[in-house]
Amino acid sequence: MAAGIEVVALDGDDTLWHNEGFFADTQARYCELLAPWASGEAIDAAMLECERRNLELFGYGVKGFMLSMIETAIELTAGKVSAVEIQAILELGKEMIAQPVELIEGVDEVVPSLAETYRLVLVTKGDLFHQESKLARSGLAELFERVEIVAEKDRATYQRILAASGVEPERFVMVGNSVRSDVLPVLELGAKAVHVPYHLTWELEHAEPPAEHDGYWEIDSLHVLPDLLGRLATPG
Amino acid sequence: MAAGIEVVALDGDDTLWHNEGFFADTQARYCELLAPWASGEAIDAAMLECERRNLELFGYGVKGFMLSMIETAIELTAGKVSAVEIQAILELGKEMIAQPVELIEGVDEVVPSLAETYRLVLVTKGDLFHQESKLARSGLAELFERVEIVAEKDRATYQRILAASGVEPERFVMVGNSVRSDVLPVLELGAKAVHVPYHLTWELEHAEPPAEHDGYWEIDSLHVLPDLLGRLATPG
Repeated sequence: MAAGIEVVALDGDDTLWHNEGFFADTQARYCELLAPWASGEAIDAAMLECERRNLELFGYGVKGFMLSMIETAIELTAGKVSAVEIQAILELGKEMIAQPVELIEGVDEVVPSLAETYRLVLVTKGDLFHQESKLARSGLAELFERVEIVAEKDRATYQRILAASGVEPERFVMVGNSVRSDVLPVLELGAKAVHVPYHLTWELEHAEPPAEHDGYWEIDSLHVLPDLLGRLATPG
Repeated sequence: MAAGIEVVALDGDDTLWHNEGFFADTQARYCELLAPWASGEAIDAAMLECERRNLELFGYGVKGFMLSMIETAIELTAGKVSAVEIQAILELGKEMIAQPVELIEGVDEVVPSLAETYRLVLVTKGDLFHQESKLARSGLAELFERVEIVAEKDRATYQRILAASGVEPERFVMVGNSVRSDVLPVLELGAKAVHVPYHLTWELEHAEPPAEHDGYWEIDSLHVLPDLLGRLATPG
């Protein structure tokens, strides 16, 4: 058999389990809370600006999101938001953290079947503690040879993961919903990437998919992943 | 030469760089801010209780500390704390995150010298993003063969690290300031541990050191570590 894929790396949030929807729902409830002071549009814009500004201090994840919601509320209300409302924001964030993990359709069949053929690695970013807890609750933890919860998914991160897995780039594929985090830095290294779009993308994750690229595929559902990977053994 | 130590694992916060002091300073300023409502003692007690309660949602690190400060302020003032004061709490936390990394005395000599003889691993907990940034700013990153930023330092975590490093427990030593996190779970696995007390310990990290144990040492300063490790090559 020609050398095919050996290591399949999978993203967590919005690839294996739903995530961005919880952020969007929470932000909608947050907008209702602040409705006396500002329009939903103005709140969303201020929140995005605040998250962008805080990214280099807080990184990704729910705790930073909670802190940015509080900061934005104070800003937008010129300090008039009450402690009771800030308490409500804290509660919104805690509910997100405690939320049960909901696997994306197909994951419970496809991932165990991939694990029979390939070495699986989870590569996800966000709060370390929260991601570990989601993985534990997903029921998928045992299927992964390695779990990499990382601060940023850039070229250096993937380079380190390839080295740690002892795999050649051409035998490594990353599968995820973010072009910016799961596709572009992986292709740069000469590895392969499969984009599985999710119906929601956080604005700070947005990037254009690559045009033509022979190590890149876009699929609608994880259901077709095993077939696609199987075909990669033989070139062309 | 008899089989000695092969892998030296080092804790980060309060072992390589100062940390708890920043938390204590911040909490003192927080107490001043809330002085109109409660005594320092009452604030410290409420804060500890809040952190304990939130630990299973937030894990360790500055972002959880910030959220607990906000929650405690709302509680203790029965919702009367103003948005301006909450903004000040956010600023206190952001200052902590932006704080320059201050190495503990001796680290800049001892750690490079250890790296000449042993494989070094950093094992630290807290916010992933913040810890990575501290490590980068410490100037020590290149000396470590592996960096493990973990959600909890328990037996299972150390078992995973030993396996990933491919080292026998008797040739692995963990060095750190926390008996609870750096010593007890390591000894349980049959590996060795060196306790280097720091002058401050967070109450939720407190544990009694082991009585007699032949794989355990307490030292006053990292300066004596190279000698101690060198002597471990020959039993007795």
